[in-house]
Amino acid sequence: MTGPTAAPAANEASAGARKPGPPVIDVDVHEAFSSIEALAPYLEEPWRELILRGHWKGFTQPFVYWASGGGNRADAKPDSGPPGSDLELMRRQLLDAYDVRAAILTGYFYPVMMGDMQVEFASALAAAYNSYQIEEWLSADPRFLGSVHVAPQDPQAAAREIDRVGSHPQMTQVLLGITTRAYGDPFYFPIFEAAQRNGLRIATHHTVHVEGSLGMGRYYIERHMLIPQGTMSQIISLICSGVFDRFPDLKFVCLEGGFTWLPHLMWRMDREYKSLRQEVPWVTRLPSEHVRERLRLATQPAEDLSRDELLKVVDLIGSEDVLMFATDYPHFDFDSPLRSLPPRLPDSLERKIFYENARAFYGLPENGPKTAAAGAA
Amino acid sequence: MTGPTAAPAANEASAGARKPGPPVIDVDVHEAFSSIEALAPYLEEPWRELILRGHWKGFTQPFVYWASGGGNRADAKPDSGPPGSDLELMRRQLLDAYDVRAAILTGYFYPVMMGDMQVEFASALAAAYNSYQIEEWLSADPRFLGSVHVAPQDPQAAAREIDRVGSHPQMTQVLLGITTRAYGDPFYFPIFEAAQRNGLRIATHHTVHVEGSLGMGRYYIERHMLIPQGTMSQIISLICSGVFDRFPDLKFVCLEGGFTWLPHLMWRMDREYKSLRQEVPWVTRLPSEHVRERLRLATQPAEDLSRDELLKVVDLIGSEDVLMFATDYPHFDFDSPLRSLPPRLPDSLERKIFYENARAFYGLPENGPKTAAAGAA
Repeated sequence: MTGPTAAPAANEASAGARKPGPPVIDVDVHEAFSSIEALAPYLEEPWRELILRGHWKGFTQPFVYWASGGGNRADAKPDSGPPGSDLELMRRQLLDAYDVRAAILTGYFYPVMMGDMQVEFASALAAAYNSYQIEEWLSADPRFLGSVHVAPQDPQAAAREIDRVGSHPQMTQVLLGITTRAYGDPFYFPIFEAAQRNGLRIATHHTVHVEGSLGMGRYYIERHMLIPQGTMSQIISLICSGVFDRFPDLKFVCLEGGFTWLPHLMWRMDREYKSLRQEVPWVTRLPSEHVRERLRLATQPAEDLSRDELLKVVDLIGSEDVLMFATDYPHFDFDSPLRSLPPRLPDSLERKIFYENARAFYGLPENGPKTAAAGAA
Repeated sequence: MTGPTAAPAANEASAGARKPGPPVIDVDVHEAFSSIEALAPYLEEPWRELILRGHWKGFTQPFVYWASGGGNRADAKPDSGPPGSDLELMRRQLLDAYDVRAAILTGYFYPVMMGDMQVEFASALAAAYNSYQIEEWLSADPRFLGSVHVAPQDPQAAAREIDRVGSHPQMTQVLLGITTRAYGDPFYFPIFEAAQRNGLRIATHHTVHVEGSLGMGRYYIERHMLIPQGTMSQIISLICSGVFDRFPDLKFVCLEGGFTWLPHLMWRMDREYKSLRQEVPWVTRLPSEHVRERLRLATQPAEDLSRDELLKVVDLIGSEDVLMFATDYPHFDFDSPLRSLPPRLPDSLERKIFYENARAFYGLPENGPKTAAAGAA
């Protein structure tokens, strides 16, 4: 839901005690720490001391936000700390406001944004974030499932970090932030090897460093329209470099990159594959087959489709199993489970998008992830 | 049509004297000169002498082609010179092989690829190419319609060149090659002003310098899958910088960037516009309205859609007026008028895509462009 007409979820939920809407697995929820100093207890030295001295201020973005709440829902700001940092507020506005059975935590903290400078610091930040997420979020509510943060600019260190925390029972995936790096490059294969041996999935999510094919754009609105290109490019890169073929157990999910371009991308990749595949003999199947079997896309931002439009898009994708619902809480373009997808979808499709596709993708038990996570907590 | 199964058009046409297939306006035909020296007679000094001395070799691409005919149809190579350089062969394989009533010549020569160095040379190349196209192609066959080539890195010079040749009765549009420049930037407004005052359209076409959001890609097949991103980005740039609003008489066509992503792009732009338009108050309408009224997309490469898929895509675009057929002759991924779009399309839609949309877009008379161009020749 976007724009001034987007009602806060808290209001939507206030109608009654019974949770409104369908059972949901929300695959893109952005928890946050209260300030960069909150990460310090989890950081190794010398980085801890340097941060406590204020020698690094954390990440920021190279543009100003125009929306009333900046990059976040205006009503998601707690009394102290940034949106997403207050567990109780998140429970009230998201987990308990709707029938959210599980929430995949994706943070909004991408050590890849450090670039190629001081990669040891970037790797230390990733490790600190994972420890923080485990200690302060995964242990706090069994509905939370985690993402392993890494600094992909040092793939060997990333693989070690995946081995360190990847076996945590609430960890689901390795999270790769999209900047201008193409993750199909064999440079990154140690990350995929580590994810595969730990039974984790691969997730992508844009960072504020994502670009379109002509750069960042002149305006924030322009850049926001360009975000899907980073996701499309990663899929193309992963397919053409044979990551789907070389790592047969891996599954992939692209978060917050949209989904209505997927029919185009599958048709385009298949057409090129038919005529130019001699260049990439390690790609052993039609790209669309890899996509339908092993790639999932989060729905947010859902682009205000009509029922007929969404059904046509799903039909053109050729599978009801690809889309997984996400809210993107607490960001400004939050998708409400009640209003971001069109009403009166066929029951089976609605259940797949809001719940079942994510349950299957993340390998959660039939009786729901709450039980599984509770067992792990 | 792509791949080893693509039959040469000459074979398709040999079945009989009557031209097969529907009447066609082919909006993307790549004529070529026999060698860079062929341009010399049209070049101003000192550039003519420098080229004749071999001090510049022309453009090339930073990758090797794998297909059997390189970047071109293997059967389109004349006895001498590159594919596209032999008028008689082009007539035989394209104009007379199908019922082609008009062909928009787009060359494959983009002075923008000179970059920011020696912009005077780039502008001289553009002028020479226009003179060459007028003298050696437009005057040779009334079915040919031309594109004004410019060096957009010097917008004032580009505007002067548009004024010099833009009134030629067979000139239809200003051709902007896509590299990594975003043409919405006000830097380029003199080009749009000149196009508007000369009654020309704006066409975009990728160059071999086009990139995806993560760069060129590791393989040619990957890069070829990324090409549409350059087109999507230009549309986003033109919309967000208000080019559609500031130049109300201009119409736009994007060549060889595909089209099946257009529903996604319109939905995405509209959603962002609804929530973030305060940043771009000069954009006065929903982006999708600008697109449907004034933007056209060439069909090639047509991505091997089924009839049902194409009809769904047209339905999701929300208009039958947006698509215009192109063959991309003589390039390797040539789309045959007989086989690249699915059979048994509704008559009215088929006529629009192959003929009527281009006729209306280019303002050709009801009785067909051949007559109009003949009057001009």
